[in-house]
Amino acid sequence: MAGELPFDKDSGNENTLQSIRYSRGRLQLLDQRKLPHESVYIDIHDSTAGWHAIQDMVVRGAPAIAISAALSLAVEVINLGSVDWKVDDAIAFLQKRLEYLVSSRPTAVNLSDAAKKLDDVVLKASTQASSPESIFQVYIEAAEKMLIDDVNSNKAIGLHGAKFILHQTNKSHNLNVLTHCNTGSLATAGYGTALGVIRALHSEGLLETAFCTETRPFNQGSRLTAYELVHDHIPAVLIADSAAAALQKSGRVDAIVVGADRIAANGDTANKIGTYNLALSAFHHHIPFYIAAPLTSVDLSISTGEQIIIEERSPKELTHALGGQGQQVAPSGISVWNPAFDITPANLISAIITEKGIITKKDQSSVFDIKGFIENVS
Amino acid sequence: MAGELPFDKDSGNENTLQSIRYSRGRLQLLDQRKLPHESVYIDIHDSTAGWHAIQDMVVRGAPAIAISAALSLAVEVINLGSVDWKVDDAIAFLQKRLEYLVSSRPTAVNLSDAAKKLDDVVLKASTQASSPESIFQVYIEAAEKMLIDDVNSNKAIGLHGAKFILHQTNKSHNLNVLTHCNTGSLATAGYGTALGVIRALHSEGLLETAFCTETRPFNQGSRLTAYELVHDHIPAVLIADSAAAALQKSGRVDAIVVGADRIAANGDTANKIGTYNLALSAFHHHIPFYIAAPLTSVDLSISTGEQIIIEERSPKELTHALGGQGQQVAPSGISVWNPAFDITPANLISAIITEKGIITKKDQSSVFDIKGFIENVS
Repeated sequence: MAGELPFDKDSGNENTLQSIRYSRGRLQLLDQRKLPHESVYIDIHDSTAGWHAIQDMVVRGAPAIAISAALSLAVEVINLGSVDWKVDDAIAFLQKRLEYLVSSRPTAVNLSDAAKKLDDVVLKASTQASSPESIFQVYIEAAEKMLIDDVNSNKAIGLHGAKFILHQTNKSHNLNVLTHCNTGSLATAGYGTALGVIRALHSEGLLETAFCTETRPFNQGSRLTAYELVHDHIPAVLIADSAAAALQKSGRVDAIVVGADRIAANGDTANKIGTYNLALSAFHHHIPFYIAAPLTSVDLSISTGEQIIIEERSPKELTHALGGQGQQVAPSGISVWNPAFDITPANLISAIITEKGIITKKDQSSVFDIKGFIENVS
Repeated sequence: MAGELPFDKDSGNENTLQSIRYSRGRLQLLDQRKLPHESVYIDIHDSTAGWHAIQDMVVRGAPAIAISAALSLAVEVINLGSVDWKVDDAIAFLQKRLEYLVSSRPTAVNLSDAAKKLDDVVLKASTQASSPESIFQVYIEAAEKMLIDDVNSNKAIGLHGAKFILHQTNKSHNLNVLTHCNTGSLATAGYGTALGVIRALHSEGLLETAFCTETRPFNQGSRLTAYELVHDHIPAVLIADSAAAALQKSGRVDAIVVGADRIAANGDTANKIGTYNLALSAFHHHIPFYIAAPLTSVDLSISTGEQIIIEERSPKELTHALGGQGQQVAPSGISVWNPAFDITPANLISAIITEKGIITKKDQSSVFDIKGFIENVS
């Protein structure tokens, strides 16, 4: 029955928040640090402003970061107007700025992938380009396409994920799903990945409760996910990260769905710190644990999670309230270990939900064959 | 070798913080909500003020709560002066106030145990008492003895725990120990339980690093434990609760030691929310997981943790920064599940460190025989 559900691809998207507002020549990013109190959009005129918006976490979430970076450079070249450059100058300029943008968040593979794709598009166009303006035009259109593609991709993730989760449980409704961090409209160009799956379940009347973790130290769960869930009238309960195991033990969680910052070829997944904690307790309690992410989050060049470099963030996120922006909580002089991400090994992951369908493990394997999956669906 | 170490029972106690300042007729409690910014002591003149100090978390930590409650009633009766009561009136008054004090924190077995003991002392004295003043005198001395006994008990826990942990590892120094919540001088009358073990390891030059979790939502770790560790010059690193599994996976944790709010007869332990999370990941990573608590934390009347009622605290601790006292973080309208404690089953606990020695599991048992241990050491 679940496979035949009339999933409405557009449901739940009309009133969702927009983290990225874009029209040609103009980019605004919702300053997510100010939520839930204020909805303030920051004008991004160039890639330097884009770099700082990513670094300072005005915008966050792997897909949103990639698209914001791409579009920040698009508005920069639009606003350059007519330039006295050669075609090669335009190419060199775009390449240099893309390289610079990637440095704003080295862990986010979506960002470096997007930069590489745009780089390729520009290089390909260069053979036929007669002016810097025509190179710029190609770049701008490619960046804009990323925005459109991301929303469509997320809706497909939501659709596939909701169907699959329903199939995997012995329940036909009233599903309770736990998520971590923010992977919704605020993390993407719209709809969301893991939160897109929850949104799709809700649209179909299959969801009882979405549980979201606070997601320390930057509170993406309590500030952003909770905000989206309340905004979209999805029944939701906020918990402390440390309450997740007790919640699972209580029997109130049917599935856990989280996003991904980077997925290795074997399925090992880098995601927001705390994901590994959740995966361990899900494993212990026999609760399915899903990654929901676009295939752009996969990095086939790394075979396992051990090769993923983990970014460490400022101690201030822990020593001060409000993710580092509030008053001091911890004493001066305390050392801090503040990794932004952790690695969840593939053996703890039940399946990976993508826009092209579900990646499952073959036979008795403890890892995923993502390369094989991609070849199959291409 | 470890068994012969010249543990100095007094080491590390000279400069530790005092959460309870007491001299006959005067009780002051350090307002722990204001740490690490201000060291403000609140004068407690009676049991009503004691009740509110416990309820409002001016004072916290199971042993400190019990002693503060007992002493708040001691100062109340001292300051009553001469009264025109019968002996029975005095007994009824003490009993009623003790019952009232217990209601300030129903989960804390130390508190109800202390009240019961004081009740027994009063009843026993009543047979020979000739005046309400003599009943009061008996009560006051019994309450004061609790303060003295607690510090001595903690030092014994530290001594036993440090020796045992050393014996259980294959390291002879540079031990790295992770703890949760606050179980130090700020949670007890002095020295501490789990933190007392860390303090003892440090005093003996055996400790490399103490890792402490933030302990959301009330930040007892970042505010209090970190403060004590910095204060006492113990090398310490603060982490988010959600980073604990990644830290363990990295191989940087030799043992985990936490306190207990209540221990069932089989060893199932109620402790600060997040303890169960830590125990699960310790189990997965083969890291020993210890409970350090005085035997007063044991409640032999409950056979397993399932019988322990878990207190739920205000949603505001999660929706607002600084454990509910700061600005709003989460959106209005979000539901919250905020249990104060969770239950760690005995099968995940390696041993229980008490002032009378170490409780271990017999043979292949997955639970502890605490009753047998107590009978043995009595």
